[in-house]
Amino acid sequence: MNSRIAYLGPPGTYSETAALTYAQSLNRPNGHPSELKPYPCIAQVLKATADGETHYSVVPVENSIEGGVTLTLDTLWQLDTLSIQQALVLPIAHALLSQAKSLETIRTIYSHPQALAQCQQWIEQHIPSAQLIPTQSTTEALQHIKDNTETAAIASERAATMYGLPILAHGINDHTDNCTKFWALGTQTSPGGAYTSLAFSLAINAPGALLKPLKILADHGINLSRIESRPTKRSLGEYLFFLDLEIPVDNSDAKQALIELKNCTETLKILGSYSFLGR
Amino acid sequence: MNSRIAYLGPPGTYSETAALTYAQSLNRPNGHPSELKPYPCIAQVLKATADGETHYSVVPVENSIEGGVTLTLDTLWQLDTLSIQQALVLPIAHALLSQAKSLETIRTIYSHPQALAQCQQWIEQHIPSAQLIPTQSTTEALQHIKDNTETAAIASERAATMYGLPILAHGINDHTDNCTKFWALGTQTSPGGAYTSLAFSLAINAPGALLKPLKILADHGINLSRIESRPTKRSLGEYLFFLDLEIPVDNSDAKQALIELKNCTETLKILGSYSFLGR
Repeated sequence: MNSRIAYLGPPGTYSETAALTYAQSLNRPNGHPSELKPYPCIAQVLKATADGETHYSVVPVENSIEGGVTLTLDTLWQLDTLSIQQALVLPIAHALLSQAKSLETIRTIYSHPQALAQCQQWIEQHIPSAQLIPTQSTTEALQHIKDNTETAAIASERAATMYGLPILAHGINDHTDNCTKFWALGTQTSPGGAYTSLAFSLAINAPGALLKPLKILADHGINLSRIESRPTKRSLGEYLFFLDLEIPVDNSDAKQALIELKNCTETLKILGSYSFLGR
Repeated sequence: MNSRIAYLGPPGTYSETAALTYAQSLNRPNGHPSELKPYPCIAQVLKATADGETHYSVVPVENSIEGGVTLTLDTLWQLDTLSIQQALVLPIAHALLSQAKSLETIRTIYSHPQALAQCQQWIEQHIPSAQLIPTQSTTEALQHIKDNTETAAIASERAATMYGLPILAHGINDHTDNCTKFWALGTQTSPGGAYTSLAFSLAINAPGALLKPLKILADHGINLSRIESRPTKRSLGEYLFFLDLEIPVDNSDAKQALIELKNCTETLKILGSYSFLGR
């Protein structure tokens, strides 16, 4: 049977490229090709796999400029059945797509809010008077530029090719080192690897409450490559913490640290132990 | 001279209500009233005060459901001239505004992405087939419902009154304990108060690098009421940390802790020491 992979659609988004990359890593020479299924929002992507509609979900977790993708983290905290199978990092290069003959005639620019934010300085420098309109995805932005020479969309070069739209400017992102980390998740146990991700809530909000779990990790020599706080949604000032650790979950230090962590947190969830594709 | 206060407009947003609340706290019985100035995005609000166009900026920092307002934190890290003068917490109550006679005829709902996210379960339960369209502000959403009985907007009851639009459903937010924390900032020194906020970057990404600053705070008995990481935008995996401490900056423990913090961070910025309005 072929593997069905859920991603944040429609086709032409960076998430589709990430899902395609993951699909290629799954395909064996004589195996069945994977089938990609687009969903309109990240929560629906993850629920599709949790509910058994698809085998895997590929979702953005973190962008080097914009930070954590909060909807991914919040949904993973609610769903208990998904484990990280693989991480992959994709370079993000934005292009300006438009039917306009020159930048001067552009009045409006459409794109996903993150893409608009990532090209802010370029826009201020080259089309300062343009009105910026957020869309649900970079692909959705394209429908606004089809029959209009006063509009432009920010999307990938691949989207321009897929939808037959002209590129007016290449590489318009303000930071050249712009990349997004994706996780591929499934309901099976994590395959293991050099990285372990977890999340926890704390029972109390007192001096040293967060210090304790961090001290446990440091005492075991475990490097914390990322910590991100999210609200518990119970009341202002109560948080969940998402941590990425540079250690396999079956390492003896990691095992001992996880036992100690369990004792000083309210709820502890292991999101998975995995490697990065191509590293 | 009256005080000019910059806020995220247009009029009718929750930010305007926060700016009005702050303005009232500034006004003396025989003084000049404050003048509110709307700006189209948070970065422009803060720059208006940094550039001397306005005396104060009132910006959202954190919502109890959606978490930190990343544009506020990122812009404050870039601007060195603003200090927090006051914090205020505003309850957020969303209403569904529409010319429709009943929920059944609504095809499309417009609002700011955070407001859409905060009413997600209510929408799924009551208008599951509605298409959700993000707008730049809750007020901007109102222009889509003026002459159309198939659309609705999510905004405050105050906005409904201001723009003469009917309310079809009250209190539609999924979490009743929904509130947003705002900071009022200015170029003058912070007035002092029970809270101190700071931000720092770390020179190295090694085991214990984040642990050191947290241990310093714990050793001085300083409670950390919030920690939030943001990317440095230099490369994936490098972070800034924003901390809220429950201690006045001129307390002797705080003074000593800040000296020690300076020694174990790359860049340390004190954002201000302040109190909460009405507490």
